Amino acid sequence: MSNIANPTPRTRVVREPHRGVYDRATVNQILDEGMICHVGFVADGQPYVIPTLYGRDGNALYLHGSAASRMLRSLGQGLSVCVTVTLVDGLVLARSVFNHSMNYRSVVILGTATLVEDPVEKLTGLRAVSEHVVPHRWDDARQPNEKELKVTSVLKIPIEEFSAKVRVGPPNDDAADLSFPTWAGVIPLEMKTAAPIADKGCERAFPDYLKNYSRKKNS
Amino acid sequence: MSNIANPTPRTRVVREPHRGVYDRATVNQILDEGMICHVGFVADGQPYVIPTLYGRDGNALYLHGSAASRMLRSLGQGLSVCVTVTLVDGLVLARSVFNHSMNYRSVVILGTATLVEDPVEKLTGLRAVSEHVVPHRWDDARQPNEKELKVTSVLKIPIEEFSAKVRVGPPNDDAADLSFPTWAGVIPLEMKTAAPIADKGCERAFPDYLKNYSRKKNS
Repeated sequence: MSNIANPTPRTRVVREPHRGVYDRATVNQILDEGMICHVGFVADGQPYVIPTLYGRDGNALYLHGSAASRMLRSLGQGLSVCVTVTLVDGLVLARSVFNHSMNYRSVVILGTATLVEDPVEKLTGLRAVSEHVVPHRWDDARQPNEKELKVTSVLKIPIEEFSAKVRVGPPNDDAADLSFPTWAGVIPLEMKTAAPIADKGCERAFPDYLKNYSRKKNS
Repeated sequence: MSNIANPTPRTRVVREPHRGVYDRATVNQILDEGMICHVGFVADGQPYVIPTLYGRDGNALYLHGSAASRMLRSLGQGLSVCVTVTLVDGLVLARSVFNHSMNYRSVVILGTATLVEDPVEKLTGLRAVSEHVVPHRWDDARQPNEKELKVTSVLKIPIEEFSAKVRVGPPNDDAADLSFPTWAGVIPLEMKTAAPIADKGCERAFPDYLKNYSRKKNS
């Protein structure tokens, strides 16, 4: 597949190196649980960071957007990108301000985006994004027609040069602080759904595949 | 204060321009509700996007980290940065795949980071980050000592060149799709806490200021 040895000097975790994770299974799990990514690119020497949805198909990451989008037009020309996905898992409250932290899992992918021109792969990419955000939705909704496909761009980024960074567990206080009189521990955080709001005029039942929607995967 | 007219050509929302928001009150509200930002910077021509906590004090954004951090050392030398904060508010399920969307609020700030050297402002910045993540925690935890301050770097980014992008409301289906037989509407999403996990040996009561922790501000 690829001859990139992970991590490269560009993706090796320098700060808190024990939090660095480089195996593809962990990286894929984080990518599949995340919903949006932040895409970084450079234009006229200025970095830009734009949030967007994504999907994964094997070792490829797909982004989509309007063919008129500034970002997609720039990126499709073979620019270097950085795609970052971050899951926030909890507040870590130590006795000392200094040892406060977050539990989180993040993935950084460096690479070059290419515009997907092949119509079959374009559908594969769009379906990957759709199934990533709401599994089973693609088959239940009205699928893209030719005109819609024409005004939609799909970008592909190989998942080859990457690293993850993960912090889990309780606070790490200095021994001298353990008697400091404050509550210490972790407050877990999770993205949750609230009650769905049916669109005006929608009389269909709420489908099973949307019940218990969660980013957590049963794995 | 500043003579930057917002938006600048660099921050004007090009795609879906009706979603662009440029007033400081809206931007501050998004920044205050967000927890992490994604910081973009360029090193050797390669963009990097790193998630990190932040705090706001008036029209200044503060980041903090280890003085040994690759990112903070680079940024402190006056590099151009892009700081992006994104809130995901809901899944927007249309009848057509094409009109699916997200409800979200995001802020993009372009600027130059400077390393905060003044010890008083350094504490201001650290307190801003701490109070942003967990209000009231600073006064209840053991505050930073001289040694800890020395190994911590604080960066300041002026909130002067910025824009926000906001999508709210129901799906926008084409008229011809309104009879398509699928459920359509919005599934709201929100970051929620789960039951706190006290640290081993912690016998203090869970403090009032941590109860009902929420990113939503009563405004």
